[in-house]
Amino acid sequence: MKPWEKNIRRVTPYTPGEQPKEKDIIKLNTNENPYPPSPKVMEAELELEQLRFYPDPSAMELVEAIARYHGLNNDQIFVGVGSDDVLAMSFLTFFNSDKPVLFPDITYSFYDVWADLFRIPYETKALDDDFCLVAKDYYAANGGVIFPNPNAPTGIAEKLSFVKDILDHNQDVVVIVDEAYIDFGGESACTLLDQYENLLVVRTFSKSRSLAGMRIGYAMGNKKLIQVLNDVKYSFNSYTMNYPTIVMGKASIEDEAYFRETVAKVVKTREWFKEELARLGFLYFESSANFVFAGHKEIPAKDIFEAARNKKIFIRYFDKPRIRDYLRISIGTDEEMKVLVSFLEQFVKEWKNT
Amino acid sequence: MKPWEKNIRRVTPYTPGEQPKEKDIIKLNTNENPYPPSPKVMEAELELEQLRFYPDPSAMELVEAIARYHGLNNDQIFVGVGSDDVLAMSFLTFFNSDKPVLFPDITYSFYDVWADLFRIPYETKALDDDFCLVAKDYYAANGGVIFPNPNAPTGIAEKLSFVKDILDHNQDVVVIVDEAYIDFGGESACTLLDQYENLLVVRTFSKSRSLAGMRIGYAMGNKKLIQVLNDVKYSFNSYTMNYPTIVMGKASIEDEAYFRETVAKVVKTREWFKEELARLGFLYFESSANFVFAGHKEIPAKDIFEAARNKKIFIRYFDKPRIRDYLRISIGTDEEMKVLVSFLEQFVKEWKNT
Repeated sequence: MKPWEKNIRRVTPYTPGEQPKEKDIIKLNTNENPYPPSPKVMEAELELEQLRFYPDPSAMELVEAIARYHGLNNDQIFVGVGSDDVLAMSFLTFFNSDKPVLFPDITYSFYDVWADLFRIPYETKALDDDFCLVAKDYYAANGGVIFPNPNAPTGIAEKLSFVKDILDHNQDVVVIVDEAYIDFGGESACTLLDQYENLLVVRTFSKSRSLAGMRIGYAMGNKKLIQVLNDVKYSFNSYTMNYPTIVMGKASIEDEAYFRETVAKVVKTREWFKEELARLGFLYFESSANFVFAGHKEIPAKDIFEAARNKKIFIRYFDKPRIRDYLRISIGTDEEMKVLVSFLEQFVKEWKNT
Repeated sequence: MKPWEKNIRRVTPYTPGEQPKEKDIIKLNTNENPYPPSPKVMEAELELEQLRFYPDPSAMELVEAIARYHGLNNDQIFVGVGSDDVLAMSFLTFFNSDKPVLFPDITYSFYDVWADLFRIPYETKALDDDFCLVAKDYYAANGGVIFPNPNAPTGIAEKLSFVKDILDHNQDVVVIVDEAYIDFGGESACTLLDQYENLLVVRTFSKSRSLAGMRIGYAMGNKKLIQVLNDVKYSFNSYTMNYPTIVMGKASIEDEAYFRETVAKVVKTREWFKEELARLGFLYFESSANFVFAGHKEIPAKDIFEAARNKKIFIRYFDKPRIRDYLRISIGTDEEMKVLVSFLEQFVKEWKNT
């Protein structure tokens, strides 16, 4: 090792979900939406002249559109480059206690990463045997609470009364509800924003709005929370969301009819797919998201994962404690899911015959 | 203060340079390019269908185009959301020593911000009376060196032999040369990449490529440096550069003729403007950037700044030690600079008559 290499930060490189380039694959591994975004996104007018200027650091046009959509004020909305950016900024801004931040043991894989990055103490709380969060685990003294609802990779949504219970027991810290998948099912904590000024609700355009390629996330909360999030953001990088994103993101959230139509299609396909899974001998969790977390009663998940991959069907397998018997399968189009079901049917049949 | 407010991170909110919305102003305050980006940027084909997928985390299409432009290999290029993102990531990745990182006292205003954010010890070294860097100040034991070349807000470029001298005396740490303005003058350290494997050169599309609104920056270095930068980036946020940026950025760097033409225009206007400044009794530094740092021999800079603002001409004034007698004036179109010169001429005349 050369001397200059000594001061280099050591990290465990993260391997993002596979993004294969072939066109003839069925890609059900990263919870992308099977339908393109609203055509209005491409019709939104971009001015070449505008590109030479720094973008509006407040992204006000997009903030206004999101606020209007939710019936909130502009000063209750913070936008970021994907919900990963919003969440990382929230960790940095709100979790500065010596007490541990609490989140589930099985959950979005970046929470512990950001905690480590910003040297925030944390403790994970085990999901119960049904893979649900246990409210009383979050009554313990803590420096903040964060959980996704619906949770990932299970897809299970907790009731609003559960979220309220967590908030009632955590009045002295910021509680973040990560609602990346809420548009596909479950009750949003948005309705609690008036009652709980320590609540932050985080959303993304990547799933229900088919804009993973654009990177847009946002947080909703009382104006004090939003103000400090912006203060922290501006303090070290003012211009993160570019001009095309502001314009195209606005066009997306204003097309409510298209949004409702595509979300309904995904939900309908999911419910059909669950029935097929049951028929084929799979156990699955009651998903409220755009994916299903399922495992076969007899066949190892890893075998199914690998066989599917050989047929150019990409699903997600996590080789981790407690969840290595399951596969996370994103909901594709009806056509894609039918190909998957045929493959599964065949695979189960052959497996039983050997 | 509510209990939940106690753990919130306290920061000094940064006030970005004014981005006034009126159309009839002359905006010479944030070093944007007065010419629009290459028309090819808007002609680049975006596919609606592609937006539903997560973007390529390696932004390989853009990386390839940049590598080709510089005659480097793909594994020598790291791209980020503006050079602010690239620089912040570089601080996080390379500056992990207990010894202080060194940079000039008068320089880009975010270096100390990132050092504070990541708890990196640092020491600033004073520019000399001519506002130049002093090479031997950087011979001291340190945890890394960073400086812009040309420097900001002075616009002064140090010679390649100076950069080489810094590198020769700093073989055990990473040395970052921030070349945000290099396309407008000065000698790039790119030619030293083969000799110094601890050298990182950082660039931006925001100035010479008229794409401040798009947020594209990049770093060039040996493949080990680039590899660890990517490892650190992927470890906590894999998808930062969106799909349109990759496609449009590629179109920009491939239009060499347009780039040369607009850069030449800015440089020509700058040289004319310097002569006008001399004629009007201003002192200025020999700028190699797309701005000039100048102060009048008799009139306080702040007075000129405020009077210009009243005439809807926006320039930059820093109320800070050592530089409060100067104004940083971005180079606009010939027409814009003529309006500014007329204003200055009139203002100087009136000031002398009172």
